[in-house]
Amino acid sequence: MCYDGSSFAGWAAQEDERTVQGTLEDALGRLTGKRTIVCAASRTDSGVHAMGQVVNFKTASTIPVKKVPRALQALLPDDIVIVRAAEGSPAFDARRQAKKKLYSYMIVRSDVVTPAIRRTSWILSGDLDVAAMRRAAKEMTGKHDFTSFTVTDKRRKLGDPFRRIYSIRLKLGSLKEFYGGLAGGLGGRALKIDFSGDGFLYKMVRSIVGTLVDVGRGRISPDDIGRIFGARRRSSAGRTAPSRGLTLIKVYY
Amino acid sequence: MCYDGSSFAGWAAQEDERTVQGTLEDALGRLTGKRTIVCAASRTDSGVHAMGQVVNFKTASTIPVKKVPRALQALLPDDIVIVRAAEGSPAFDARRQAKKKLYSYMIVRSDVVTPAIRRTSWILSGDLDVAAMRRAAKEMTGKHDFTSFTVTDKRRKLGDPFRRIYSIRLKLGSLKEFYGGLAGGLGGRALKIDFSGDGFLYKMVRSIVGTLVDVGRGRISPDDIGRIFGARRRSSAGRTAPSRGLTLIKVYY
Repeated sequence: MCYDGSSFAGWAAQEDERTVQGTLEDALGRLTGKRTIVCAASRTDSGVHAMGQVVNFKTASTIPVKKVPRALQALLPDDIVIVRAAEGSPAFDARRQAKKKLYSYMIVRSDVVTPAIRRTSWILSGDLDVAAMRRAAKEMTGKHDFTSFTVTDKRRKLGDPFRRIYSIRLKLGSLKEFYGGLAGGLGGRALKIDFSGDGFLYKMVRSIVGTLVDVGRGRISPDDIGRIFGARRRSSAGRTAPSRGLTLIKVYY
Repeated sequence: MCYDGSSFAGWAAQEDERTVQGTLEDALGRLTGKRTIVCAASRTDSGVHAMGQVVNFKTASTIPVKKVPRALQALLPDDIVIVRAAEGSPAFDARRQAKKKLYSYMIVRSDVVTPAIRRTSWILSGDLDVAAMRRAAKEMTGKHDFTSFTVTDKRRKLGDPFRRIYSIRLKLGSLKEFYGGLAGGLGGRALKIDFSGDGFLYKMVRSIVGTLVDVGRGRISPDDIGRIFGARRRSSAGRTAPSRGLTLIKVYY
């Protein structure tokens, strides 16, 4: 499924908040006539978007699975899109069985942007040393203890802090290249950062992006990345990038 | 200025409705300390978007004009973007002095689209004969009495029904080409229809698009266009395309 996270308080259902999970479960409840709990591959944070979120749920409904996307879509708001539905094994767990996840983060280098760009990117002025950012990204690739790049709180205890990042790719391009007609013919450049990994801790992608931007601005050196991993403290790394620039692209099983 | 028309009841200020004009005038009132009336090149309808709307207003404010875009932006919601501001002659009238306007209409040929696509396009399934649509578009180009392609009501009386369309161009492309990353890697094609003209009557672009789609579906023949012009009745032409696919691209003076 896809969603525009702008008007949601994230994936996870919370009382009195408009969440993706809550909205989807409401629609499924109306469709099937029974309260239905869904489990998502990634519990995206408030404001984070998804192009390829995967969810699973159990139902006794006899609606043919081929008809589910259209029937469900009719009960959903415009900022959620059901792409497809399939029957899976009863043991399928979208979260635990995910093998690889792709995330994408957009940084836009322009003072003036269209509403479509603003809702899906971090707008940054000033110079960025992309070569230094690429060197730092290379240091972050591989299997590491990412404690310095996550946030813990009462609800979110740190479990296994090790994750493997397969690749971090930085791609520079024009707004037109990344946004097509929704760039409205405005000039300006953008930097897209693509992440591939076996999983990501809470706020990990945004912490890495914020740190890469601090590298790009010369506040952190690519040579500091090893020390930041070693410190195992969030404060040793850079800022947390805003959620609106982040999109869950795809989940592999 | 740009705006995403999805959450606005159109340009023109109306009591108890969220409109672009009302929102902009509120912000200008706060910025200048005085009630300020703005005049727009095009009074776009509910749900219609703009990339290059032009407005003018008079003010006694001493804020340097170079600082206006940023100062005004800080008082505006995310779905309106001020691109630039300039001082003009006191006689400048964004509406009356417009010489040429460009509009763009997006038709998307895909069952499944992302939220960004859905909010800015007419999603249509089934075959479209684009060659026939191009022939009909050619018949509409030039100076005509467009009475059959506009809607009149108590508030909107028909004045001069003649307008000159310089060109109507139909461009087929992939979703990726038109929407970049916001297409989310989904397959599917889109048809973009670009209009250039000296001006457009109320709902004229949408009436033309609806009629072109009826041509594409074989309900109207390109040879009928002359007869439709001659009938001078809205009911002789095709349906009115939904507003969400329409964007005011640029205004020339």
